[in-house]
Amino acid sequence: MYKVKVYVTLKEGVLDPQGKAIQHSLASLSFEEVEEVRVGKYIELFVGAHESLEARVNEMCDQLLANPVIEDYQYEIEEAVEQ
Amino acid sequence: MYKVKVYVTLKEGVLDPQGKAIQHSLASLSFEEVEEVRVGKYIELFVGAHESLEARVNEMCDQLLANPVIEDYQYEIEEAVEQ
Repeated sequence: MYKVKVYVTLKEGVLDPQGKAIQHSLASLSFEEVEEVRVGKYIELFVGAHESLEARVNEMCDQLLANPVIEDYQYEIEEAVEQ
Repeated sequence: MYKVKVYVTLKEGVLDPQGKAIQHSLASLSFEEVEEVRVGKYIELFVGAHESLEARVNEMCDQLLANPVIEDYQYEIEEAVEQ
């Protein structure tokens, strides 16, 4: 079993209203030192063994997990620790 | 300037309907090898220098970025690359 950590982020230059809202909230809580906030998705996939695991993860990201028009993605693959 | 990468995830045992929905969508796209999906938030904070930066980041997470009842958080602090 593998644990795939996927990070989906907005592309450079794409407006991030959610990030702006969080920044304003942080400022109202007196955290003025925060100059920018960018919000993305962190997705953990627990995947059974597959001979072309990396290719499959790329396909999953391209087809579903990330919107290729406005989002970029990165991922890390590690052996899952059996619970 | 520092770049703080914050990972907010649901606590162990907390139901993840969004993760379930993604898993079903992946299965319908023939990615049956995916056995579980957990969805969280990936937040990038760009923060000016502060003498107790770690303490401040903990406060931001405790007060706003993560819901302490159902979520855990982790973060990494690195020097931001000036654009």
